[in-house]
Amino acid sequence: MSIKANDPSRKSWLPVPPESDFPIQNIPFGVFLTRDDVITIGTRIGNTAIDLGALHQLGYFNEIPLTDDIFLQDSLNDFISDGKKTWRLVRNRIAELFDRNNRELQHHEEHKKIILFDLDEIEMQLPVQIGDYTDFYSSREHATNVGKMFRDPENALLPNWLHIPVGYHGRSSSIVPSGTPIRRPYGQTHPGESGTPVFGPSKRVDFELEMAFITTDANKLGEPIPIAEAEEYIFGLILFNDWSARDIQKWEYVPLGPFLAKNFASSVSPWIVTLDALEPFRVPSPKQDPLPLPYLRQPGPGSFDIHLEVELIPEGGAANTISRSNFKYMYWTMAQQLAHHTVNGCKVNSGDMMGSGTISGPTPDSYGSLLELAWMGSKPLVLEGGERRTFVEDRDTVVMKGHCKKDGLRIGFGEVSTQLLPALPAETFPG
Amino acid sequence: MSIKANDPSRKSWLPVPPESDFPIQNIPFGVFLTRDDVITIGTRIGNTAIDLGALHQLGYFNEIPLTDDIFLQDSLNDFISDGKKTWRLVRNRIAELFDRNNRELQHHEEHKKIILFDLDEIEMQLPVQIGDYTDFYSSREHATNVGKMFRDPENALLPNWLHIPVGYHGRSSSIVPSGTPIRRPYGQTHPGESGTPVFGPSKRVDFELEMAFITTDANKLGEPIPIAEAEEYIFGLILFNDWSARDIQKWEYVPLGPFLAKNFASSVSPWIVTLDALEPFRVPSPKQDPLPLPYLRQPGPGSFDIHLEVELIPEGGAANTISRSNFKYMYWTMAQQLAHHTVNGCKVNSGDMMGSGTISGPTPDSYGSLLELAWMGSKPLVLEGGERRTFVEDRDTVVMKGHCKKDGLRIGFGEVSTQLLPALPAETFPG
Repeated sequence: MSIKANDPSRKSWLPVPPESDFPIQNIPFGVFLTRDDVITIGTRIGNTAIDLGALHQLGYFNEIPLTDDIFLQDSLNDFISDGKKTWRLVRNRIAELFDRNNRELQHHEEHKKIILFDLDEIEMQLPVQIGDYTDFYSSREHATNVGKMFRDPENALLPNWLHIPVGYHGRSSSIVPSGTPIRRPYGQTHPGESGTPVFGPSKRVDFELEMAFITTDANKLGEPIPIAEAEEYIFGLILFNDWSARDIQKWEYVPLGPFLAKNFASSVSPWIVTLDALEPFRVPSPKQDPLPLPYLRQPGPGSFDIHLEVELIPEGGAANTISRSNFKYMYWTMAQQLAHHTVNGCKVNSGDMMGSGTISGPTPDSYGSLLELAWMGSKPLVLEGGERRTFVEDRDTVVMKGHCKKDGLRIGFGEVSTQLLPALPAETFPG
Repeated sequence: MSIKANDPSRKSWLPVPPESDFPIQNIPFGVFLTRDDVITIGTRIGNTAIDLGALHQLGYFNEIPLTDDIFLQDSLNDFISDGKKTWRLVRNRIAELFDRNNRELQHHEEHKKIILFDLDEIEMQLPVQIGDYTDFYSSREHATNVGKMFRDPENALLPNWLHIPVGYHGRSSSIVPSGTPIRRPYGQTHPGESGTPVFGPSKRVDFELEMAFITTDANKLGEPIPIAEAEEYIFGLILFNDWSARDIQKWEYVPLGPFLAKNFASSVSPWIVTLDALEPFRVPSPKQDPLPLPYLRQPGPGSFDIHLEVELIPEGGAANTISRSNFKYMYWTMAQQLAHHTVNGCKVNSGDMMGSGTISGPTPDSYGSLLELAWMGSKPLVLEGGERRTFVEDRDTVVMKGHCKKDGLRIGFGEVSTQLLPALPAETFPG
């Protein structure tokens, strides 16, 4: 099935600023609250948000088999459940409708008033109700850096790492959309070899630069998803900041993995960019040696060339770009992650989210966390104006951005931007 | 507020067999499919299931502020959101209505036909839509046994264990109700020191005897739940079998914890027994030394005396009781678990589920897993008829039961019963 929405020559009758992440070839999906306090599913071209619920009510999707209320929802889960064929039909139709050669809506001022919103008239929501959230650990550079710092520099990568896309379950309830401030968490930490544990605000709050994919209903409990079919069940990708409290993590994570060090908050970008829209930017993932077991063998190029960057903005200060990385550095592909996740029959539902793990590149300026960028506090970053950072400070804002670019076409994700608020007062807690 | 439903002298006009888990003092909550293919919320007295949706429609809850459709749901989440006061009012009203001295419904044959079901006319469902599922690791005996087998017999308990209720996130999507058979999972395992990993069905499928509590909406993101209030947000308890594949777990779990070894399936009993109904069986938890940090100090007796047992039934064979344990052995209480889980501001929602971890007692016949009962294969269990078990075999059924008993009053949980089906054929997978 051809993806007509991807036609690179198409121009929209809606304005698209130069270097916009959202040309008519993107057509991402999100959920927003409108100026009339209505929650709806929408898309975005340039800096215009488009209410798909209203478009559908006005009959613009009549040729596509869709239930009446499919876009009048507070999450994309039901639409995602409709499957890849429907996603393509809808993207193709949106591309056609907003094509500058199409007059259906372009000159219908009354409908445009109902359907189109400036970005400052809407409030982006979480795009999906996330049933289960899994986080992988699939950047070889990140796993190696962490292994060097916390375990054995000579054997930084653990024995299982090259054989399985290591992952663990995270907490869905603490995932918030871009723009939602979060709080420095309290927790238990241990001062070191001797001494007893102490309680207080984390002193080592860090970000993790990740991307995450959103799945559709994929299988029944007990049935695996073969790697060759895995991408059929991936709706799209978002930017993901997996906030981490390194001092809490160090004390709690043996033997069952990270828990309170991660589940105080995680932040996502609000627009899901479909795998279809990313197709022009497909690239091979790094060569895998040893060859994985057959159930994990990637059938073709399974990665995407997505430029990523992290900005740190002190309150009232300038934006400092502190990392430039790329999704293509990931050792394990999304198809490998999903095939592995379900090889035991684990059930995957519409709206589940799977994080890549911190995306670190091969050079020190491409590391995806402050832990690595400032090498566990030993190499503080110097910001514009002279301030230093080893971890995230109160009222800092961390912004992650991502986009693909090739042959004049740019498809992007916008951003996930989050401010860290100070910890609650100590009197909140007994003792 | 007095819990009138707990009056031990009350008798119901519905028959209650001797040694039933469900006298009129229990009044658990569950969700079932009726003979008319309707999903409803219900309770149970003796062997009679009671349709609370129909009771409410017929006006029997008119004195309680409830929305019209609160019981006409496929999960208890909304009812649980209504909070502890409402749960008490509803349990008190049910106790009154089914009291043998109450004539309102007792002689209304037409209404009784609509409201009452034999157990073989209904099909129990999952009682809640589980948003997030957390599993703790709170039995000192279990953690010690595992530490002895897999790590260092001299330092079996890890340094953090006596200071924090260690826990991790599990997979909600793979949780099934009692009676749903599960499949032996495939996965990657490693033969040992040398060699390369292999792929195939797990050879070490095990059960874990646990209980789990169900929460209500408790806090906003960023806000902790103080330990003194924690029980206000616990709706009730169920039996929980946390199926585990020990060979997969051994290879995958470092450094991020168990993943595919656990998420192929987990089984729960269908009736949630409220914390209120368990109140007469409250007991202190084991003395804690060292004293936990102030935010974790249990304000009073925080455990319950719940007798637990595990039966293993080979296909066509007899039921073998292979473990007798008790919930009161848990070192960390539910209030401590919930206070710890939220001390960093992690958000807890209605319908979230938190498992205790394997409940092992002090004696070898009270261990809560086959791993421990057969001590990692070294002491096979001999079943009636001479068959031996070190792990669960294909077509075995594992049944967990639990009840409290005191002063002639018995309150129980029924059972969670699950058959293990053989693995899928090898041709399911490539290679």
